[in-house]
Formats: sequence, C-alpha cells, structure tokens
Amino acid sequence: MEIVEKLLNHSRLALSKAITAVENEYDDAVKIMTEIYPHTGNAYVLGITGPPGAGKSTLTDGLAKEYRKRGKTVGIVAIDPTSPYSGGAILGDRIRMMDLMSDEGIFVRSMATRGSLGGLSQKTGDAVKLMDAFGMDVIIVETVGVGQSEVDIVKTADTSMVVVIPGMGDDIQAIKAGILEIGDLFTINKADREGTDKLNIEIEMMLELNPERVAWRPPINRTIASKGIGIEAVIDSIEAHKNYLIESGRLAEIRRARIKNEVTAMLNDRVNRYIDKNVVETPEFEETVRKLQTREIEPYSVVDKIVGNVLK
Amino acid sequence: MEIVEKLLNHSRLALSKAITAVENEYDDAVKIMTEIYPHTGNAYVLGITGPPGAGKSTLTDGLAKEYRKRGKTVGIVAIDPTSPYSGGAILGDRIRMMDLMSDEGIFVRSMATRGSLGGLSQKTGDAVKLMDAFGMDVIIVETVGVGQSEVDIVKTADTSMVVVIPGMGDDIQAIKAGILEIGDLFTINKADREGTDKLNIEIEMMLELNPERVAWRPPINRTIASKGIGIEAVIDSIEAHKNYLIESGRLAEIRRARIKNEVTAMLNDRVNRYIDKNVVETPEFEETVRKLQTREIEPYSVVDKIVGNVLK
Repeated sequence: MEIVEKLLNHSRLALSKAITAVENEYDDAVKIMTEIYPHTGNAYVLGITGPPGAGKSTLTDGLAKEYRKRGKTVGIVAIDPTSPYSGGAILGDRIRMMDLMSDEGIFVRSMATRGSLGGLSQKTGDAVKLMDAFGMDVIIVETVGVGQSEVDIVKTADTSMVVVIPGMGDDIQAIKAGILEIGDLFTINKADREGTDKLNIEIEMMLELNPERVAWRPPINRTIASKGIGIEAVIDSIEAHKNYLIESGRLAEIRRARIKNEVTAMLNDRVNRYIDKNVVETPEFEETVRKLQTREIEPYSVVDKIVGNVLK
Repeated sequence: MEIVEKLLNHSRLALSKAITAVENEYDDAVKIMTEIYPHTGNAYVLGITGPPGAGKSTLTDGLAKEYRKRGKTVGIVAIDPTSPYSGGAILGDRIRMMDLMSDEGIFVRSMATRGSLGGLSQKTGDAVKLMDAFGMDVIIVETVGVGQSEVDIVKTADTSMVVVIPGMGDDIQAIKAGILEIGDLFTINKADREGTDKLNIEIEMMLELNPERVAWRPPINRTIASKGIGIEAVIDSIEAHKNYLIESGRLAEIRRARIKNEVTAMLNDRVNRYIDKNVVETPEFEETVRKLQTREIEPYSVVDKIVGNVLK
C-alpha cells in the first residue's frame, strides 16, 4: 500500500493518516496494520501513568527532549483525558505541543477517549506499532491512571513508570489499589512541595511489602518537571531497567506476553462483534429481552442456548 | 435450593452467602441466580458516583437513613476502592458501617475491586438482584467515578446521581469528560466550602450545552452530608426523577436496555472464556505467539483463521 510505503520512508503525514485510519476503524486499517507488522518490534516502549494533575505531560516533554539530546527519536501517544494533547483546551499547551512537533525526531499523537474506552487498548497498541515501523527509537505512552483500561495499556509497556506528587492526601489509598503495583520506576514530580519525603517513605514501604520485587528494585526518582530538574536521572533509571530486562531475559518474556494479550484481545473483539451483529441486533433477541423483562424466562438458560448456537 | 429459600425468607446470612458465591464464582452461583431471577425487578436502583473524596459514603449513609424514616428498606453495594466499606482501613468507618447494619432494614455489602475489574459489572448486577429478591425497596450502588467500568455500573441504575465538591480545580475537566454526562441528579456535597456557587454555575452551563436534556432537567442539590444537611431534598429529587421515569415510560425502557446489556455481557463473557480455554491456553497458541514474535507471521491472518475455527 502506498500509505505504508510512505510511512516506512518516514513520511510524517503518512504516519498521521495511518493512526487516524486505525483510530476511526477505516476500511484500510487492517491492511495497513498487516503490512506494517513485519517492520515492528524495534522500538522501546515506555508507559507513564499517574493521577490527574501529577504533571505527566510536562514530564513526558522533558523526557522526550532529553532522549533527543541522547540521539534517540521519540514517539508520544497521549491518552490522558486531562492531557493538553487530547484535552486541548488551553492555548499554552497547544503551543507547547507544536514546540515539540517542530523537532523532526519527535512525533506526538493523542488518542480520543471520549465516550467508550472500548478498543482503546488495541488502538493504542496499533498507534505504537505504527510509530515503531516509522522508526521511532522510543515510544512513550502517557495516560492517566484512573481506570483499569488505562492501567492495562501502560502495563503492556516494556518499562512502566508511575508519577505521583506530594500532598494527594487520602487519594494515595486509591492509587495504591491499582497503579502503584505496576511501577517499574517511580517518579515523585513537583518534588519541591511539602510531603515529598513522606511520600517517598510511603512508596518504599509499599515496595517492601511486595515480595515479587526481588530481582528488580524500582528506583524512586524526584523531579520538578516544569523546571527540567531531575529528568536525566529518570532516563538513566529507564536505561538501567531496560538493561536489567535484556540481561535477565525478561524483555523477551514481556513482549511475548504482550503479543499474547494483543491477539487474545483481537479474538475477543472479533467474536463479540459477531455476537452483536448476529445475535444482539436481531428482532429475535428483542423478543427474548421482552420475556426476560416480564420474568417469563431467566437469562442463564438463554445464554446457554445462544452460546450453543454460535460456537462450533 | 436451600440458600435461595432462606434468602427469600429474609435471612440476612443467606443473602450474604449468596453474594459471596457470586463474587467468588462458586459452583452454585449460576444456580442461585437462576432461581432468584423470577423474584427480581421490584427494587428501585440508585447509582451514586463521583471523584474520590467527594463524601459519597457519608452521603449514602444519610440517604439510607432518610429512606428508613420514609419506611423503605435499603441495600447498599459499595464498589468504591476508597470507600470505608471496601477499603476498611479506618476503625471509625468500620463502626459507622456496623451502626448502619444494626438496622434490619439496611444491608451493606462491599465488592472487592483489587486486581482486575473484569466481571465486576456483572457481579455488581448480581448483588443488586440478590438484594432485590431479598426484598429491599431501594438499592444504592456507590462507586468512584474514575474508570469506564465504574461509570458503566452506575449507568445501569434507574437513577444516576453524580456527587461533586467545590475546589476540585482542574480535575473538573477530567470529570466532565465522562461522569457528568450520566447524571440524572447532581449533588454538590461539602456545600459550605468556597466555590460552591461557581461549581453550581459550571454544572448548569454544562447542562445547557447538552441538547438531550429536554424532558428531564437534572436538579442540582447542595448537601453537607457530614452534618446531615440537605439529604431530604436529595431524596425528594430522586423521587421526582422516579415519577418522571414512570410517567414518561422511560423506566421500562431503561430496564429493558439494562437487561439487554446484561445478557450481552454474559454472552461475551462465556464466549471469551471459551476462547481462553480452547485457544489461548493451548500449546499450539504458544507456538503461534512465538512465530508472531519473530515476525514470521502477522496477527490478522492468525485471528481470521482462529475465528473461522471457533464460530459456526
């Protein structure tokens, strides 16, 4: 396909169009992804998550610029609904985004999260693959760590970084429940604020409690991203984690698990669409729902029967 | 089944055990739900969501007590990971929960959210049905409105209430993106705080922008739940919404849509489990993943082939 050839020849316009095709499920999306696939698997994927207001976007910008200094090209996929990239309300943030994009070695793309998150994980994975095939060395996936879908996305990265800030109060409880567990690295941003030492201790205590963390002890970095302070140390930690993953053989395992998850999700998606089209969106199903509503029948036998009809 | 008979005869222990069976997917869970189903459909379901720290639990308690004054029995399903019911860290909150539970007309149950949220929506629906069959007049489903899964749960209620508090700053942006849209009612809790009027105007402006809101204009109530202020007016608004739903015929439509969603989710769940067992967890699939990792093959043809093998 022409678009794929152009993308592989570093056309930023082609990359942009290909992501749009995937995002909107255009007819040629599957064909694009099929042709692109053999050219993927070279980029290193960094996932960044954390609560709203943690300064993830600013930190991501700083990391991208530092990677550029080190000679690496960077793709950014922003899925944070509060992110300037996808939210796009504030002029200053738009300007910052354009500032980043003026560098040929950086490509920023936001993914729409309005409405359903369904398929977001797969679409994000496809956007990552497109940037990978385009030739980006590092791809940063940035999202807000509030829902399971977002956490799942970051989980599929080679290195997952959790960004927190001091003074979140009780909300640390909510975060602990989910996203802290996925961090290979922790970054305390806005580290000139009161409560930084306390937060650091809390994270350390939590890590102590996690028996799985033996071979790799997640480092806790401190940054003031808005002033560019601490960024280099974060990149050094990411590189250290990358080296650990390569030397331990974990990187191949992680990527294997990622492929397995991706194909499973594609299978589930395909089969669920089939059921939607051939079962749920039929007049017969409407009649079944009516009978369920009047309690003439119960749903478990209904499901048994339909499953028997659908599966071989 | 004995447990179902006991539950229908108002045994709180049987209700508790039945929810545990559903939550942990015990072997008898489906049988319990099948036998219970004809006895469901009588309770009114209220969904409450909002950001962490909005005081949803305190408000829920207040609403439950006010319903009791009005002669109604109340079931509470708490899915908020920051909720005292499911978090359970703080002694004071445990005592408050026991205080509620000392009333025979109130039953509180938390649903575990640690780890995967998969199936949480269905399990919550089952817990609601069990409380419904038990005979509770009103069932309150309380969750934190941060992820799509949680929002989806509240969306399935007859009446959905969104709780917000003044002074959330930029986070209102994040909330606007999702949960504000689902509110049939809005409650500004902690309404003695600065910024209450401003927040009220913001919500009103957002409602103005929503063209779908013609027949029912969501009221905005103000409460100080910790002092029991404003609770009666909230219940009056819920009752007004309920009357609107009944008179307009919307209640039957909502419940029809809920049943349709539930059965679809059950179908998807069953088929996805089948794929997990018969495809994903096979040595053949491991070999496929290996070939994908080395880019010998690409995933789209793989998915086509498997789907062809699985579906009739």
